[in-house]
Amino acid sequence: MITLISDFGLDDPYVGIMKSRIAQRAPQIPIIDLTHRIAPFAAEQAGYWLWCCLGQFPAGTVHLAVVDPGVGAERDIVVLEAAAQLFIAPNNGLLGLVGGEPEARAYALSQQARSRLGLESASATFHGRDIMAPLAAELACTRIRAVELGPRVALRPGRLTRASTQADGSVRGVVAVIDRYGNALTTISVGAIAHLRQPQVQLQERYLPWVRTYSQADVGECVALINSSGMLELAAREASAAQALDVRVGQTVYVHDR
Amino acid sequence: MITLISDFGLDDPYVGIMKSRIAQRAPQIPIIDLTHRIAPFAAEQAGYWLWCCLGQFPAGTVHLAVVDPGVGAERDIVVLEAAAQLFIAPNNGLLGLVGGEPEARAYALSQQARSRLGLESASATFHGRDIMAPLAAELACTRIRAVELGPRVALRPGRLTRASTQADGSVRGVVAVIDRYGNALTTISVGAIAHLRQPQVQLQERYLPWVRTYSQADVGECVALINSSGMLELAAREASAAQALDVRVGQTVYVHDR
Amino acid sequence: MITLISDFGLDDPYVGIMKSRIAQRAPQIPIIDLTHRIAPFAAEQAGYWLWCCLGQFPAGTVHLAVVDPGVGAERDIVVLEAAAQLFIAPNNGLLGLVGGEPEARAYALSQQARSRLGLESASATFHGRDIMAPLAAELACTRIRAVELGPRVALRPGRLTRASTQADGSVRGVVAVIDRYGNALTTISVGAIAHLRQPQVQLQERYLPWVRTYSQADVGECVALINSSGMLELAAREASAAQALDVRVGQTVYVHDR
Repeated sequence: MITLISDFGLDDPYVGIMKSRIAQRAPQIPIIDLTHRIAPFAAEQAGYWLWCCLGQFPAGTVHLAVVDPGVGAERDIVVLEAAAQLFIAPNNGLLGLVGGEPEARAYALSQQARSRLGLESASATFHGRDIMAPLAAELACTRIRAVELGPRVALRPGRLTRASTQADGSVRGVVAVIDRYGNALTTISVGAIAHLRQPQVQLQERYLPWVRTYSQADVGECVALINSSGMLELAAREASAAQALDVRVGQTVYVHDR
Repeated sequence: MITLISDFGLDDPYVGIMKSRIAQRAPQIPIIDLTHRIAPFAAEQAGYWLWCCLGQFPAGTVHLAVVDPGVGAERDIVVLEAAAQLFIAPNNGLLGLVGGEPEARAYALSQQARSRLGLESASATFHGRDIMAPLAAELACTRIRAVELGPRVALRPGRLTRASTQADGSVRGVVAVIDRYGNALTTISVGAIAHLRQPQVQLQERYLPWVRTYSQADVGECVALINSSGMLELAAREASAAQALDVRVGQTVYVHDR
Repeated sequence: MITLISDFGLDDPYVGIMKSRIAQRAPQIPIIDLTHRIAPFAAEQAGYWLWCCLGQFPAGTVHLAVVDPGVGAERDIVVLEAAAQLFIAPNNGLLGLVGGEPEARAYALSQQARSRLGLESASATFHGRDIMAPLAAELACTRIRAVELGPRVALRPGRLTRASTQADGSVRGVVAVIDRYGNALTTISVGAIAHLRQPQVQLQERYLPWVRTYSQADVGECVALINSSGMLELAAREASAAQALDVRVGQTVYVHDR
């Protein structure tokens, strides 16, 4: 299975064109869209969603992430092996969060591998179509393995990083994404706060009640919970927490022990 | 075939995650998106579209509808058999309109059926992914039948109800949806006005000319017609009837005999 | 392979309903969405994207384009053979640009062919579903050929036409589409300016520097380049050229020789 995530939007045919290229090399592989409405050039937001999706796709899934403001310049295309899945993206910070997984390994696509795959010629402005989509097809069909693509490289870190533990044991993260419902999703995973006995969530001066599910809140009430991806989320029942809390992407969130 | 309708939007990967779950249990079943841009929590709008789609999908189609503000609280997940198709949704009013079909039967998903299908464990916030998507896969593959899922239950009615006939024979309905073109789609089906010899459509103080097709109107003119789903629709040629008539969802529409 | 492009938007289930019709006649044919967010009734914009996509799909692809304000009136449905692909659309200007390809041939769907295909009965308002979608399925399965559908017809030209060469050798085109990134895509193809030794792009009083790729510009700088579809594009690095240049669809663009 191949998944797609990009900042292409849905107004233009760029996504369909990539799918045509995939289908020509891998007609039997199902393609699933994650989203194409990442804000233009917001590579880290695409990377955050891929991190959230880690547990949701079967082993062997190939994820193709195209948020590529540096297309045509000197930036590698990388393939990351992590959690038994493959992630293809420009090396521009997009894969920083997923690259923190244990035993993650990234390989830069070499000129030799491009030649072997018939991908030498590419337009100057659409490597998603000309290089990454066919590469996803080849990897999904297991006609080539990540380790054969080129040298191991370090992933460029993005502006979003995993939550960190402070000297006093409290955990510090940020709001990574506001979703469609106005929920504020953070970089704080359930694992990152496992050492806290009575976690208490702080946003600016405000402490949020902790619930297990939206329906434990009153309608409109702002709460904190671990969402279905295993991430700390600030939510409001049947309302927008982002509006009610005036919270923005990048804002700091703390989890203290009571 | 499985169709999906939800209020997930297209900005976030929630739809793709549900498709992954379906594909893992039913890789051969095609999935068709109806829409994921139902307004957040507007369960009845999803239900209205399903009603409109009744004649458009082949027998055996499984429709999965996830607009679920009560997730994690005590609300059943139901499977409705109607018009030779299956509809899976929370029992929150979404299926009220389709449930009015002749011989419709609804079953509540029982704990025993969840165990049999390996769906005991579920997150607190995403039953679309953890319960309803795999259930859709099992039903589409006919590995289980609706009648085996649990007891028959009554469907909760939603705020949208089918049109009613008044004492004088005229028919009363409401605007259920404003579509992309600004057409106002009502709850009045062609069958509900079959007894009227010269139907005349009234919106507030205004009577609308009756046409067979948009092109019979002048550009910008507001008219009434039976649309391709067999529903009474208020339209304006190459323009937005919703704007021209200042009509909103929930507004009353009458059809009188001349 | 069948592609779809329309002005249906993604809020309503009209696209899914068309896919159901295609799947019922051609279950094995993959369907790729180009976009459904063409502005309502903007047939030429759909046609422009199809022209841009000419090189991106394999021979035998069937493209179904439904922007059809004249549905129900006297306008033909046409099938165009061009560049080894088939294009189905109402004859309303949509296919004017693609119809300029060498050896393009258009056929009007006849009543006899509709009978043969079982498409006599159709709703008054949704020929995309009732005629064009099943026709796409039949053509994609090669159960009927374009030449068998009816008489050859002339395509109605649309408001967008291919770029023209002026007496002094300079080339005149227009902005056809503003894409998601704010790039302004023109009707000037790389072939149309091949005779210019030092092409210089003029928008109103302004001349734009010529680059090969976005990354050769400074962040925010407005430039001209040949994009991945082989069309002249006005772009700004990591910014919206449409905003920076205050450019609109329909605006004239010149390319002079220096």
